Amino acid sequence: MSHDLHPLFERIKANAVERDARGGHAAEEKALLRDAGLLLLAIPRALGGQERSWQEIFALVRQLAAVDSSLAHVLAFHQLQVATVLIYGSEEQQARLLGHTADHRCWWGNGMNPLDRRLVAEPAAGGFLLDGTKSFCSGTVGSHFMTLSAVLGEHPQPLLGVVSTEHPGVQVLDDWDPIGQRQTDSNSIRFARVPLAARDVLRAAEATPSAFHTLRNCFGQLVLTNLYLGIAEGAFAEARDYARTQARPWLVSPAAQAVDDPFTQNRFGEMHVQIAAARALAERAAELIDRAFSRGPALSAAERARVAVAVAEAKVLAHRAGLFASQELFEVVGARGTRAALGFDRYWRNVRTHTLHDPIDYKLNMLGRWALKDEAPDPANYT
Amino acid sequence: MSHDLHPLFERIKANAVERDARGGHAAEEKALLRDAGLLLLAIPRALGGQERSWQEIFALVRQLAAVDSSLAHVLAFHQLQVATVLIYGSEEQQARLLGHTADHRCWWGNGMNPLDRRLVAEPAAGGFLLDGTKSFCSGTVGSHFMTLSAVLGEHPQPLLGVVSTEHPGVQVLDDWDPIGQRQTDSNSIRFARVPLAARDVLRAAEATPSAFHTLRNCFGQLVLTNLYLGIAEGAFAEARDYARTQARPWLVSPAAQAVDDPFTQNRFGEMHVQIAAARALAERAAELIDRAFSRGPALSAAERARVAVAVAEAKVLAHRAGLFASQELFEVVGARGTRAALGFDRYWRNVRTHTLHDPIDYKLNMLGRWALKDEAPDPANYT
Amino acid sequence: MSHDLHPLFERIKANAVERDARGGHAAEEKALLRDAGLLLLAIPRALGGQERSWQEIFALVRQLAAVDSSLAHVLAFHQLQVATVLIYGSEEQQARLLGHTADHRCWWGNGMNPLDRRLVAEPAAGGFLLDGTKSFCSGTVGSHFMTLSAVLGEHPQPLLGVVSTEHPGVQVLDDWDPIGQRQTDSNSIRFARVPLAARDVLRAAEATPSAFHTLRNCFGQLVLTNLYLGIAEGAFAEARDYARTQARPWLVSPAAQAVDDPFTQNRFGEMHVQIAAARALAERAAELIDRAFSRGPALSAAERARVAVAVAEAKVLAHRAGLFASQELFEVVGARGTRAALGFDRYWRNVRTHTLHDPIDYKLNMLGRWALKDEAPDPANYT
Amino acid sequence: MSHDLHPLFERIKANAVERDARGGHAAEEKALLRDAGLLLLAIPRALGGQERSWQEIFALVRQLAAVDSSLAHVLAFHQLQVATVLIYGSEEQQARLLGHTADHRCWWGNGMNPLDRRLVAEPAAGGFLLDGTKSFCSGTVGSHFMTLSAVLGEHPQPLLGVVSTEHPGVQVLDDWDPIGQRQTDSNSIRFARVPLAARDVLRAAEATPSAFHTLRNCFGQLVLTNLYLGIAEGAFAEARDYARTQARPWLVSPAAQAVDDPFTQNRFGEMHVQIAAARALAERAAELIDRAFSRGPALSAAERARVAVAVAEAKVLAHRAGLFASQELFEVVGARGTRAALGFDRYWRNVRTHTLHDPIDYKLNMLGRWALKDEAPDPANYT
Repeated sequence: MSHDLHPLFERIKANAVERDARGGHAAEEKALLRDAGLLLLAIPRALGGQERSWQEIFALVRQLAAVDSSLAHVLAFHQLQVATVLIYGSEEQQARLLGHTADHRCWWGNGMNPLDRRLVAEPAAGGFLLDGTKSFCSGTVGSHFMTLSAVLGEHPQPLLGVVSTEHPGVQVLDDWDPIGQRQTDSNSIRFARVPLAARDVLRAAEATPSAFHTLRNCFGQLVLTNLYLGIAEGAFAEARDYARTQARPWLVSPAAQAVDDPFTQNRFGEMHVQIAAARALAERAAELIDRAFSRGPALSAAERARVAVAVAEAKVLAHRAGLFASQELFEVVGARGTRAALGFDRYWRNVRTHTLHDPIDYKLNMLGRWALKDEAPDPANYT
Repeated sequence: MSHDLHPLFERIKANAVERDARGGHAAEEKALLRDAGLLLLAIPRALGGQERSWQEIFALVRQLAAVDSSLAHVLAFHQLQVATVLIYGSEEQQARLLGHTADHRCWWGNGMNPLDRRLVAEPAAGGFLLDGTKSFCSGTVGSHFMTLSAVLGEHPQPLLGVVSTEHPGVQVLDDWDPIGQRQTDSNSIRFARVPLAARDVLRAAEATPSAFHTLRNCFGQLVLTNLYLGIAEGAFAEARDYARTQARPWLVSPAAQAVDDPFTQNRFGEMHVQIAAARALAERAAELIDRAFSRGPALSAAERARVAVAVAEAKVLAHRAGLFASQELFEVVGARGTRAALGFDRYWRNVRTHTLHDPIDYKLNMLGRWALKDEAPDPANYT
Repeated sequence: MSHDLHPLFERIKANAVERDARGGHAAEEKALLRDAGLLLLAIPRALGGQERSWQEIFALVRQLAAVDSSLAHVLAFHQLQVATVLIYGSEEQQARLLGHTADHRCWWGNGMNPLDRRLVAEPAAGGFLLDGTKSFCSGTVGSHFMTLSAVLGEHPQPLLGVVSTEHPGVQVLDDWDPIGQRQTDSNSIRFARVPLAARDVLRAAEATPSAFHTLRNCFGQLVLTNLYLGIAEGAFAEARDYARTQARPWLVSPAAQAVDDPFTQNRFGEMHVQIAAARALAERAAELIDRAFSRGPALSAAERARVAVAVAEAKVLAHRAGLFASQELFEVVGARGTRAALGFDRYWRNVRTHTLHDPIDYKLNMLGRWALKDEAPDPANYT
Repeated sequence: MSHDLHPLFERIKANAVERDARGGHAAEEKALLRDAGLLLLAIPRALGGQERSWQEIFALVRQLAAVDSSLAHVLAFHQLQVATVLIYGSEEQQARLLGHTADHRCWWGNGMNPLDRRLVAEPAAGGFLLDGTKSFCSGTVGSHFMTLSAVLGEHPQPLLGVVSTEHPGVQVLDDWDPIGQRQTDSNSIRFARVPLAARDVLRAAEATPSAFHTLRNCFGQLVLTNLYLGIAEGAFAEARDYARTQARPWLVSPAAQAVDDPFTQNRFGEMHVQIAAARALAERAAELIDRAFSRGPALSAAERARVAVAVAEAKVLAHRAGLFASQELFEVVGARGTRAALGFDRYWRNVRTHTLHDPIDYKLNMLGRWALKDEAPDPANYT
């Protein structure tokens, strides 16, 4: 972790258990992330941002996820919307929207859920009017902008655009009360005659997405990957701290200290190796994303396919490492680690919730088709 | 399930999610179990009980655990204390204590945790006085009797006895707030000059336990086994109901209905087979327990060893089936199954909490020593 | 194992490694099995047989499979053909064919492979003439009778019948040289104008199979189950013997003897528990088969479905236990156990070969459909 | 694979099944590897070699292992001995021994097995005389030089040196007949008064090994890692070829072609992802080895520890990927893939044999101690 963030992350960790119990919006902690400049990471230097590499950004997301995967989710989705503008936006849009974002340190929310087609755009003077509902709009509460997808007439593809979330027609519904990822503000949003100016359309409904455009999916999937992996790392760190300071060896263990029990050691070895493998694939995927991103519109379909495959490989391993470590944590801390006050179950609840984003069976299927039939991943299927 | 219990179990299921959130004592539901005569299952007919086979009792515990594993825990621990009196108690003790239990439908609590040696017995007129604390006293709240173990002087073995939990010196501490099994009342109990009459001592500190005596551990372990397995069955049933009525196939699934998705079907096949295996071993172990119990004090150490091995085999599989099914449940219901109101995470929290009772690594180790070296399980080690 | 068979099985084990290397026909050992009366196990007492329960027969097959799974295969397939006559045959056929079998201790071979439709029956005086080829005819070499299925005209279902394998038109092809199960004589057979007398037709092509008829599939699948499981038990026994007498602890092990290494012990514990689970399911399935068999033609489709499900559950676990134990064997014996002279790899080669009989994915799928949709197993699909 | 090696590797693959059956020494194929210049890969350019990076060398070993893991073993062990001279040797030794090796394209064998302490060095005029036996001397047959370790008096550490394998006192025993890795020439060698010149001693018995010296273990372990991984890749490629050209879908599969069966696709996806993870870790470890190697004697213990950990992580995953893919291969090709002529079982026999080099349990234990207690890997324990 970059050293200056350590105190911030410790502070966030300090009340993570309490906030998980409470759910809802983490206004104060989001303000801290904003104050630390973390909303500028992906914005080009020319527009007032920090222009960090995606490898750095994903690593930071992972580190935050280890202490609070809800806030990491919100922060990562902000970066994803910035990436969306960088991918789809014209130079003018980038300058205007991201310049404003850098100047005012604006939060971005997400209204892109492609499975939900209830939000409809209707042509109107100067652009469109939006009506309907969109579910799972992570990070929209307290944000300034949001990206969204909306159905236009008979077009099979939605249009993509940016609106101000402060418009009075944007209403956040109170429908986000899940078992995990409780502070991601992934509520539904109801839109009532919300204007989408023509200049804020990122992609027209009739446009044909290029390979570069669909790279956005890879960003989204690698966000998930790093959230899962961060949770695994957080669970591991929690287990390690507890084993070193609180745990006791079992009554017939040959060891005097829990950390010297041979089976406990091997369980840590196993967690370590699962996480190391997922991390190696996640880092490799981030490196490929950086390279593909820098190719810009010149990115070929074949290059894009290789990125998508690398991301999917990493996602499968991170999915499993997250579930494994967050469950295994208990096996190594023992019965006394189940006190609710410790909040050790939040790792599992968080990763269990989030790993259901899209099914691992179909991710493996995509990888199998690639490996067996040279079939490129279909961008329509979250890949 | 015996058919007349179906409405009772449905009623218990109806507010299980709410009670899990609330935690604490389930006075009303415990009264329902008592009214249904379930406290009499293990008591001999001659003493006013139902004298059901242990196979029946464990099956019933498992069925209740499928809808509410906290209440199943409390009910099963009641039966375990009855078994304790049947194993350790004299004829007079059995007649008096269990007769009273049958007449008044008394609940029993458990104060036998052998790892906690803080409860001390001191010789006093007519028996002993008990002082100190005992942790994890499941089911003691609202009970009439409790069994307990207490350290006496320098004796390495504790004495075992029965006290009235209604004595004013018995104080329930408010320290049970876990992530799962939240309504088992497994609080610590503080004892202040609580009398233990000589006639209520089940086993003197100087007595040498027979093979039959240590069969009690097998009962305890088979209680856990059936609780884990019941949770697995409950998670499976929940997944099945949801898949049949609520779930939607993934966007690229070849199926029109979730139940026709090939990967979903195979995940159900896998859950089914894991649970079937654990159930077959649990039923076999219960059959062996019935047989061993009927042998009484004539039970040999070799016979006892075979029971303990069968129980351990079943426990390992039930442990895994419970964790597997309660996590897998989500994989087959999908993202919409994570709404807190559904409470689907309680299966995992319950089984994750309870499977930490004693470490699976050392259970496997015991089985390995048996299989490899013909070493009989050591009753001192929860086997 | 029944005690009088112990010397026989030891003798068979003594040259099992050598015979595995050689492959081909085990004439001498098959003669020993015949001399021991093992061809009479399933034949009714009234016809001169031993009329053992199927539970006993399957247990015996498993014990033989532990020392030589090829010979166990041949012996089990003999019993399966006897079962076929008992299921499909008229009283006259049973009396004549099985009476002759009992009197002369005849071996039976198998020509029923339903996937291979190259064997054709043509109406001829007194019955049919058979022409064509049938693959995987286990046990036919050196047999007296064989059952077979043959296509008749446009009938979708084959007819089933019995022929003498000693007829000159029956030619065994030299095409069985697999990596495992090398002495099962599962060659292809070429038939040239081989007569099938009308009185030897077990099921006409136009007959509708009853639930009882399709119980034959369950027998076949439970044969496989017990072969896989026997291999697992054999690998386990081999590992145990070696660990106790030859293995050395690793250089940093805390143990002075290999059997005292904690990780080795747990690996044995794990093998033990996997095998115990598979065995419990296999024994339960055999019990159900005995019960269903005794119901005869009165067996209902629903009863048959429950047997098929129980057999499939057992088969999935035995498949995995076989692969697991035969691979794990090496992990516990260490590098010195890879000497070719020990032949320890034959367990894996045998079970790996035989577990490919029909795919485990579709077995799980059948179980999933049953568990999720109450869909009964389709007898056409090896269930 | 570097393109010019493709025909060579295809030629080696062409008779790999036959040579596996035959066992013994692959003189002709070793000559081909030598002719292709592959003995010069690790030798510095200044001494007439190719001075390839270790990343390249390990990648090439892996590619060869995919078609023939015995030959890959022999070639990799040659490189390991070159590394040994580069690590332990003086400038003079490097120039003389490796210069000669480059000039004459000499093969090197391995006599370093530290667990076997039967080879004894006795001081003699001009150096030492060697007597005794050393087991597992891979690649010594047909070699020109070999490295070895020998016990000297009471010294706990052996001395390390180089001898000519052509000396008449060096006698290869005929004791290498394993179930896998059959052409690695890992015979025992008997030494009878074999001179070891003082100038050929690489490390004196009294010398204290530096962190850089013990980097040799990491090289050895990464050789194993890449052999296991190459076998996994070879099994995968075999499965893929067969599935695309020979396999048939199961009778109830919805697919018309085997490659379109959903379960088959997911099994390929799973193999793909397991192999991708192992490869990512193996490549990362090779990168770290290159970096550490370039540090030379300045390498610190802490730096060395990180390399050893990275290598162990990769080895654990490669161990599992190798066993998994070589067993899974059959699941996707089906029953017809078990014909002995195809030789598909050799992948499993090779990897099963070789993965027993040192126990995975203790590798995980080392990783656990590192992860949990910050304990650096002990070079004495193959790490």
